Amino acid sequence: MSVPETSRVYTLARRPTGTPTPDDFDLETRPTPTPGPGSVLVRTLYLSVDPYMRGRMQAGESYAEPWAVGDPLEGGVVGEVVASNGGGYEPGTIVTGNLEWADYATASPAELTPVDPERGPISASLGVLGMPGNTAYFGVTEVAQPTAGETFVVTGAAGAVGSVAGQIAALNGARVVGFAGSDEKVAYLEDELGFDAAINYATTDDYVAALEAAAPEGVDAYFDNVGGPITDAVFSNLNVDARVAVCGQISLYNATELPTGPRKLITLVEKRATVEGFLVSDFAPRFETATRQLAEWVAAGDVQYRETVTEGLENAPEAFIGLFEGENIGKQLVKVGERSDGH
Amino acid sequence: MSVPETSRVYTLARRPTGTPTPDDFDLETRPTPTPGPGSVLVRTLYLSVDPYMRGRMQAGESYAEPWAVGDPLEGGVVGEVVASNGGGYEPGTIVTGNLEWADYATASPAELTPVDPERGPISASLGVLGMPGNTAYFGVTEVAQPTAGETFVVTGAAGAVGSVAGQIAALNGARVVGFAGSDEKVAYLEDELGFDAAINYATTDDYVAALEAAAPEGVDAYFDNVGGPITDAVFSNLNVDARVAVCGQISLYNATELPTGPRKLITLVEKRATVEGFLVSDFAPRFETATRQLAEWVAAGDVQYRETVTEGLENAPEAFIGLFEGENIGKQLVKVGERSDGH
Repeated sequence: MSVPETSRVYTLARRPTGTPTPDDFDLETRPTPTPGPGSVLVRTLYLSVDPYMRGRMQAGESYAEPWAVGDPLEGGVVGEVVASNGGGYEPGTIVTGNLEWADYATASPAELTPVDPERGPISASLGVLGMPGNTAYFGVTEVAQPTAGETFVVTGAAGAVGSVAGQIAALNGARVVGFAGSDEKVAYLEDELGFDAAINYATTDDYVAALEAAAPEGVDAYFDNVGGPITDAVFSNLNVDARVAVCGQISLYNATELPTGPRKLITLVEKRATVEGFLVSDFAPRFETATRQLAEWVAAGDVQYRETVTEGLENAPEAFIGLFEGENIGKQLVKVGERSDGH
Repeated sequence: MSVPETSRVYTLARRPTGTPTPDDFDLETRPTPTPGPGSVLVRTLYLSVDPYMRGRMQAGESYAEPWAVGDPLEGGVVGEVVASNGGGYEPGTIVTGNLEWADYATASPAELTPVDPERGPISASLGVLGMPGNTAYFGVTEVAQPTAGETFVVTGAAGAVGSVAGQIAALNGARVVGFAGSDEKVAYLEDELGFDAAINYATTDDYVAALEAAAPEGVDAYFDNVGGPITDAVFSNLNVDARVAVCGQISLYNATELPTGPRKLITLVEKRATVEGFLVSDFAPRFETATRQLAEWVAAGDVQYRETVTEGLENAPEAFIGLFEGENIGKQLVKVGERSDGH
């Protein structure tokens, strides 16, 4: 497969107000970039869209650096090295890294990690065997720390992170309860992933009562991807010495004003509970160990995963926006290009 | 000094709505109780009033058991054993324990701890050498954990707990900033206790700006007694890896509806911060060690303390209500009775 003279890249057209719209993204055609000395050219096979990217779209403070208006967007990519200018990778090598939302992008070897095809489908390195899987792994094992017999609750339970987090908690012997946004997701969690209970928050009015029914012995460990009223309800059901791992707050990312909610800190005193925010990047030195463990669990069938794949780079904004509508089950990917060998 | 045939006790007249009023308390006269077998009779010398007691006045869930309407109130007392029915303490012994708001109360030896008069004034066993001092000690050393060069912020900084917490943080080498509610308290913190800065929240509109000026390098450790908008401002100034020790939320205790505030959990992700609620009672096995350390610091002049003493059991409700108006500096006590030897 030859490299075309021109190819496409998404840039940030403007900073969104509230929920992003397609007009916030520009799909531009440019001359396919040429790798400089010591660099390679990568053809994008899969692009990952992730909720945290919403923070990069705005200028305000976030843990991820803001994108500049007019600049290419970036995200997790699995791609194939198609040309090397002394960049250390042979053409044909499958790599992953944080690259442009583009058909082709250049990268230095330091920005790339080779993907081991023996570990599973290459796309899994953007999901269960990549950043989302590592986020689940460290959030559960290092922060929420559910133990056998405890009750573990996760929000965004059918997503790339939440679905893996719940399964790791179950492997630790915990009772696992998930919140998700559709009956299809609830069925997936209960019937396929083995969650002890799942709650469809979209059709539930009283989260506290629903949680009391699903977690009658209270909540010992909570993995929060969502925030807002569901988290308020979980706080009302915490047990003494509970641990809360705050991974994300997707319900708030598109807010134009900081939302308000009940002040709950006194609950932490009553329950001697701990709330800890974490970033997966802080655990980078241990990614390889965690990924190996996740791959073993996947191979043994102990951790299952699903992917929602949107076809075509041109549909990446739609796939990204869909994250906030809860349209995906499991990891949301965008299929961008084909491998040279046709796999 | 003989024991009178009748004496006084405060009971809960009704559950308060909002801020307690004197009508919520009944001062009753009763026959002075007689100690049963294995018990002693204690004359109250000092009674402690503490913010957490507000929780015991209402029926709702709290970490302290609710008082029943019509029942005697209870609180920390320093008293003198005046009669023993085989209760193990000699008359004349000074003891402390959780006893009734009364001139005289009976107690079993297990409820009492002897007060070592060598350690300081006996009233200090309700303050810096008692529960409030221990609360400050464990909240700082075990939860907030400020280290040399870090910035430590405390709310309710001129109170019994906050004033000691700030001084312990300073002993650890931290820069110490306190929030308090009057210029007199600010002067006390800065001029007498050696706080690096103090902020009068009652005359400050922009807590974030005031905190940025007082803690220009951000907040590494936060000891929260107050909650509400001050805590919101501190959260906005947290540094990476900050620790928040939640001790109390006095600004919320008299609320008739759960107050709302900005949702701040995403801040914990951005800053990888930890928020931990704690109860001093969980550290009971180590009280003796902590109290000995506090007594050494007091003797060396490294920790100073002040008491606000209200005279007369009949004024205990007023002293208690005053806690929520910020009327006290340091430990709020009620002087109830005199020692038999006139000390």
